[in-house]
Amino acid sequence: MKYTLSELTKGLEVVIKGDANCLISGICPIEQSQPGHLTFLTNSLYKKYLKTTQASAVILSEKEAAACPVNAIISRNPYYTYAKIAAYFENKKTQSAGIHATAVIGQHCQIDETAVIGPQCVIGDQVKIAPHVIISAGSIIGDEVELGEGSYLAPRVTILHKVKIGQRVRIASGAVIGSDGFGYANHKQEWHKVPQLGSVHIGDDADIGANTTIDRGAVEDTVIENGVILDNLIQVAHNVKIGAHTIIAGCVAIAGSTVIGKHCMIGGGTCFAGHIEVCDHAIITGMSAVTKSIREPGMYSSGIVGVVPNQEFRKNNARFHRLEHLMQRVKTVESTIQILSESKE
Amino acid sequence: MKYTLSELTKGLEVVIKGDANCLISGICPIEQSQPGHLTFLTNSLYKKYLKTTQASAVILSEKEAAACPVNAIISRNPYYTYAKIAAYFENKKTQSAGIHATAVIGQHCQIDETAVIGPQCVIGDQVKIAPHVIISAGSIIGDEVELGEGSYLAPRVTILHKVKIGQRVRIASGAVIGSDGFGYANHKQEWHKVPQLGSVHIGDDADIGANTTIDRGAVEDTVIENGVILDNLIQVAHNVKIGAHTIIAGCVAIAGSTVIGKHCMIGGGTCFAGHIEVCDHAIITGMSAVTKSIREPGMYSSGIVGVVPNQEFRKNNARFHRLEHLMQRVKTVESTIQILSESKE
Amino acid sequence: MKYTLSELTKGLEVVIKGDANCLISGICPIEQSQPGHLTFLTNSLYKKYLKTTQASAVILSEKEAAACPVNAIISRNPYYTYAKIAAYFENKKTQSAGIHATAVIGQHCQIDETAVIGPQCVIGDQVKIAPHVIISAGSIIGDEVELGEGSYLAPRVTILHKVKIGQRVRIASGAVIGSDGFGYANHKQEWHKVPQLGSVHIGDDADIGANTTIDRGAVEDTVIENGVILDNLIQVAHNVKIGAHTIIAGCVAIAGSTVIGKHCMIGGGTCFAGHIEVCDHAIITGMSAVTKSIREPGMYSSGIVGVVPNQEFRKNNARFHRLEHLMQRVKTVESTIQILSESKE
Repeated sequence: MKYTLSELTKGLEVVIKGDANCLISGICPIEQSQPGHLTFLTNSLYKKYLKTTQASAVILSEKEAAACPVNAIISRNPYYTYAKIAAYFENKKTQSAGIHATAVIGQHCQIDETAVIGPQCVIGDQVKIAPHVIISAGSIIGDEVELGEGSYLAPRVTILHKVKIGQRVRIASGAVIGSDGFGYANHKQEWHKVPQLGSVHIGDDADIGANTTIDRGAVEDTVIENGVILDNLIQVAHNVKIGAHTIIAGCVAIAGSTVIGKHCMIGGGTCFAGHIEVCDHAIITGMSAVTKSIREPGMYSSGIVGVVPNQEFRKNNARFHRLEHLMQRVKTVESTIQILSESKE
Repeated sequence: MKYTLSELTKGLEVVIKGDANCLISGICPIEQSQPGHLTFLTNSLYKKYLKTTQASAVILSEKEAAACPVNAIISRNPYYTYAKIAAYFENKKTQSAGIHATAVIGQHCQIDETAVIGPQCVIGDQVKIAPHVIISAGSIIGDEVELGEGSYLAPRVTILHKVKIGQRVRIASGAVIGSDGFGYANHKQEWHKVPQLGSVHIGDDADIGANTTIDRGAVEDTVIENGVILDNLIQVAHNVKIGAHTIIAGCVAIAGSTVIGKHCMIGGGTCFAGHIEVCDHAIITGMSAVTKSIREPGMYSSGIVGVVPNQEFRKNNARFHRLEHLMQRVKTVESTIQILSESKE
Repeated sequence: MKYTLSELTKGLEVVIKGDANCLISGICPIEQSQPGHLTFLTNSLYKKYLKTTQASAVILSEKEAAACPVNAIISRNPYYTYAKIAAYFENKKTQSAGIHATAVIGQHCQIDETAVIGPQCVIGDQVKIAPHVIISAGSIIGDEVELGEGSYLAPRVTILHKVKIGQRVRIASGAVIGSDGFGYANHKQEWHKVPQLGSVHIGDDADIGANTTIDRGAVEDTVIENGVILDNLIQVAHNVKIGAHTIIAGCVAIAGSTVIGKHCMIGGGTCFAGHIEVCDHAIITGMSAVTKSIREPGMYSSGIVGVVPNQEFRKNNARFHRLEHLMQRVKTVESTIQILSESKE
């Protein structure tokens, strides 16, 4: 399939500079661009490739347009424009509605006839599946789960009993939603499991990454609000609440009962202590250790980042472990100078 | 179902203050309490909600009891008491014993007739399944695995060949037990897989979290002792030994052959180097990097925790990378002062 | 089965010191050695056990051979020699070729007759499966996937559409290959999914660990070159490239478009920022935060490692957060001394 730039940008708020009838047969990255393809410039790291691009057109911002040697699609938000245009080149296979012969379906389910349930799926009892839901191969859905209209489960998703999932939610392979929260009471030096009576509620348009785990609440539900985006291998503990339109990169761990606000951005590998609150519009850089609540919007960080040669690291690491001692030496120096200065007067 | 406080506390070492016949229909959190419900105060962060609670009864310690405006269940260990009482409100569906028609069962297995094997499970050859074991939908059990009495596998658990699992063990969805250890020998600049001949042994009453991985031993077994509690997304490498009643929070990584003692508590995101030993009763806070053995019980930490505004962080991070240099400057200052002081005398 | 030392070392470049006809019935670790078994000394931490070993033979380097009280297999690369010999003691069950009756196979697939497809597998359309491929129970293979000769998928592997996998690749349980990359464009404060048009290409002889996730590329493919070894619970984001024969330990996260060179070694828990490059032969120690490109081979580190008692840690951690302030105090001291010194002259 080929599309003209006009066709690809129909309905989008963009300006085409150059030949609007130029035919595009695919997408290419700017650093390996090829004729007949469309590329995009959304990260200034890649600006150096613009001048010599072989692509037939580039999506970019107005500020970069002057330097564009080929057709330009000028947008205030080039990455969003790209997202919309790229959808033309997704070769999505239409799956026919219905329940595969090998799927096992429980009792008293309400499954819309437009829904797709793939091979080897297991659906529990009293499950409600709305129109246009796709449950791909090998997914397991527990009793009393509800899946909202147009939600998509990739192959091998596990959703445990009573979890409620909104509309147009996407869940990637290997994700586990509704596993028991990590609640154990110590009694006579042994740990006793605390029943996890809550569930998980996921709002509309949320995206859950591969092998991410979201535990069910201890009493109330764990809550993922509308439009939350979670990457792969994230751990969301019981009773966590993640506010609408917050985006969290891979390998983040969020301990129990922590509340993260709306429109936050969390870098990969960050860990959150339990029972803390992060306000709306907080940005937290990768590998941070968030141990206290954050009250003001802004960008926050912790840890030590940036690798250095190991030998240098070892010295600084050792110095860190003696930092209190170093401080005491500085204090001694300050006192001595004080005395020296005074004795001079 | 409703229960009186007397019924709920039968057999527990508690004192009821107020109306022992008060009827309870459910559990609620203290910050969102409601009449007819029972709540609990086990974390001092939530003490502020006690005075105005709407719950009909509160489980708490003697020290908090005076401030409780409603019926009180006074316990030396309120969280443990809560764990026992909450079990009344778990709506656990009884599963009928037997093997689902879609499960695939290998040869020469010994499966107790009280065991449950769910839909789409695959059981290998010579597997031994004790009474009252529940293997939920989509779980895969390798050859010669043994599962002890009353163990519970959530949907989609993978247990590989020869793994031995004790009694009353709970394994959450997505967990992989007995994957090959990470053993590779470098020869002529290429990595060659080292056969992993050992297995995994999990003791009684252990709990394994969602998507956690436990590798089989290289020669001997990887060992998880009785009552060990592992949260989600934990990596346990080959030949690790985790002592009885140790509890480990999410996203911890334990490298090969490391031995962790009994009754330890490990915070989330912590990494352990290989071939080290941690003694009994060690507490390690989250995101620590444990690179050497710990010989004495106590609380240990490493890393930098606590986020600060990014600008401030950048300065301190840069200073850290020049810490050795700072130390040299302090030393120079000390020498100069020494000279100044001496010349004064 | 028992083997003589001669039989076990046939074809290997080793020297036998002692009785080449000594019969070996199994492998044991050096710290728990037993007669009739073979052990190995490949880590100097375990050297102390050599003198008193009860094993019938030890694989070791020439330098350790003099201290060996029993038969010795002397090798320039004892761990590699061990890897080769240990294969004799792997009790691998031969699986008979063919497709299990419960597997679901799509249309227009090319499946070699020597391939094994286990129970409850789901194979999409137009999948190509080369000779001697083993796809274990419960694995799911998307449309147009290609699996090269002799590749082995453990139970419950998920491979999504169009992923290409080389020869002799091993993929552990729970791994997800080809999940959508983490690409979202923000528009009017909401995140919009960016279609992920690329795929994943995995070279020959690569090893992928349990519950590891490898996302498909945004435009081009994510690439794992020949002989790359990935441990468990690793996150590889879209368009990452990992060079041949690089080995990465558990719980590492690699953000999008980062390129890691050949023959690198990456310690567990390390995180990589996106869009950076790491040269060949870089070694990065565990829990590092790699935020910038690395241009020269060598060993690199970051973070703070090594736990200390929590009280001591708290002081140093607090000092770290005031490091810029400490620097200013040192500068003040230096100026004062300068003045004092000058005034003295």
